[in-house]
Amino acid sequence: MPDRPRYVAGSPAETEPIPAASVYASEVVAALESDIRFDERGLIPAIVQDAETNAVLMLAYMNRQALELTIQTGETHFWSRSRAELWHKGATSGNYQHVVDMQLDCDGDTLLVRVHADGPACHTGEYTCFYRSFSVDADSGESAVDPNESEG
Amino acid sequence: MPDRPRYVAGSPAETEPIPAASVYASEVVAALESDIRFDERGLIPAIVQDAETNAVLMLAYMNRQALELTIQTGETHFWSRSRAELWHKGATSGNYQHVVDMQLDCDGDTLLVRVHADGPACHTGEYTCFYRSFSVDADSGESAVDPNESEG
Repeated sequence: MPDRPRYVAGSPAETEPIPAASVYASEVVAALESDIRFDERGLIPAIVQDAETNAVLMLAYMNRQALELTIQTGETHFWSRSRAELWHKGATSGNYQHVVDMQLDCDGDTLLVRVHADGPACHTGEYTCFYRSFSVDADSGESAVDPNESEG
Repeated sequence: MPDRPRYVAGSPAETEPIPAASVYASEVVAALESDIRFDERGLIPAIVQDAETNAVLMLAYMNRQALELTIQTGETHFWSRSRAELWHKGATSGNYQHVVDMQLDCDGDTLLVRVHADGPACHTGEYTCFYRSFSVDADSGESAVDPNESEG
């Protein structure tokens, strides 16, 4: 992390300083507004990856407030589409996810959030939500969704 | 699905015929129908992960046909939301992604596709689409989006 916060859009040659006043999460998000593309629902998908094992743990969605809270607290927050409410991951289970770093993809419409997790990511108790193998035998056409532990 | 589906990869001049969809692939998807939850647009997000390095390479969307073609060919296919057309990853760039395995998440609305990639995932030439670090120092409030190579 640079000593002076930098906001880089595109190539390194386009490096642009963020004003020193950008100390609040809401201002951080505002400063990134031109890069982050929330969808028509105001959401951006966030892939959560274990920073130690590199396993992909889950995919969830952040709205602007969830992103601000994630930045502010260093713990993942999401927008629950099914419950239509903010969701502080771990608030119920104790399995908080502590943000190590975040990446924005090339076209600004997906986040990759790498975390140290206090416990399983999945509400089923599985380490990762991606525990169902989706195997296909191209020769036989046989298929299955098996509840195998992901090695991913 | 038409007997001889066609799609355009890149420019119209690069039109490429797709073989008649395998009866197996469509049956596989049909068999998984009760598990897979396509969204209201008929899409499911697919996280693509490098099976060798475990780096997260990209997030793209599959509709039913893209999923069938992915299963049938063993190479990733997506639905391009911006171009509103099927997209065979690598058809233009040569950077095909060969499917190693796939996982479905706990609630069936996200796929994790682990691949061997023939080349960079990103249209910018970067190895991964997640090459812009989005780092925040919670203490100082400093933030940055830097075009660093992801270690993810």
